[in-house]
Amino acid sequence: MSELTIWTYDWVPEGPRGLVRDLRLRWACEEAGLAYDVRTVPFDERQTNHLARQPFGQIPFLDDGGLQLFESGAGLLHLARQSDVLMPTEPAGAAETLQWTIAALNSIEMVTVPWWFLTISGQADNPLTGWMSQRLGQLEDVLGQRQWLAAGRFTVADLLMADVLRVPLVRAFGQRPATEAYVARATARPAFRKAHADQISQFEQADAARAG
Amino acid sequence: MSELTIWTYDWVPEGPRGLVRDLRLRWACEEAGLAYDVRTVPFDERQTNHLARQPFGQIPFLDDGGLQLFESGAGLLHLARQSDVLMPTEPAGAAETLQWTIAALNSIEMVTVPWWFLTISGQADNPLTGWMSQRLGQLEDVLGQRQWLAAGRFTVADLLMADVLRVPLVRAFGQRPATEAYVARATARPAFRKAHADQISQFEQADAARAG
Repeated sequence: MSELTIWTYDWVPEGPRGLVRDLRLRWACEEAGLAYDVRTVPFDERQTNHLARQPFGQIPFLDDGGLQLFESGAGLLHLARQSDVLMPTEPAGAAETLQWTIAALNSIEMVTVPWWFLTISGQADNPLTGWMSQRLGQLEDVLGQRQWLAAGRFTVADLLMADVLRVPLVRAFGQRPATEAYVARATARPAFRKAHADQISQFEQADAARAG
Repeated sequence: MSELTIWTYDWVPEGPRGLVRDLRLRWACEEAGLAYDVRTVPFDERQTNHLARQPFGQIPFLDDGGLQLFESGAGLLHLARQSDVLMPTEPAGAAETLQWTIAALNSIEMVTVPWWFLTISGQADNPLTGWMSQRLGQLEDVLGQRQWLAAGRFTVADLLMADVLRVPLVRAFGQRPATEAYVARATARPAFRKAHADQISQFEQADAARAG
């Protein structure tokens, strides 16, 4: 049995399939060649059934030989210290990778998630659109000048940033050709494609189990 | 001259004084006993004058002997690796500290900042209030059971979480006695008080220089 276990839901509706955040940890393990298992908690009553392990009722959480972490960003940074593929060990590259990983979580996703939430809630004249436009425009400028965000090569910062940006409503926001090329480049990677296919397959099998 | 330089604005209006995020890095250095200098970029025309160093026009950024990082969360995690005071070196404590640091950035601040932004924009019936109430309620449950978030003692995760929660509008949101006690406990620490006083003093001196 593997030392690494990624915990996710046992089933989700069709809408979020391919977007559930266990994919971030699967993708990282696939990039780094780290063996892992996937285990599940029940989606039904998710608000209360795993609060002891995740106080916000979210998934994923990661178990690494008994050491447990929730927050996908924390799981990614934890895995990144196990593989130079995810984060360079030399200090300048490590710092740049850390910086862009946090930027994905706290400068980009902090805008895209509430914007998306208001949009699907049917909020007229989404009041976060100006902020969204500014931040994604600044990121477009960065991505127009380089293939990957940090250290001159693909790192865990790209994995996370691309996962934030590939959400369909976010990806469709405005004309941002450098960002679109970046998302296409990241999601064409074999490690992403395997992680994505595995997540879809898991939830399809859960459909069959539910129907049966 | 110190190896560590914290970059911030040369001046800000009165409203944000005491809340500008260079305080997070000052506070961390004070807790850990790390020597540091503070240097400034012009607040006026901040949208464009330091984009080469910070693509979102934000401060702070940290210089550590020539190694540069933006994003306050990244600066904190970088500093945390230099001092056991900020983050335990033993694996379980380190993982728990990382987890709660990321939770502050991506589960709590991701809600409080857009909620606050809509509130001060005069948004009627702030559509993020339900989300805010849920997350802060879940955090209140956690803080009702422990003094500090990780490793049984104050860590950089508390520094960041308390800084997120002490924003006046956020602090005044609902009745959350355990959270209020936590914020009071964190901000009573001598390292916070020194960092806070130093930031206020810097901007007051800048007032004098502008007036002169």
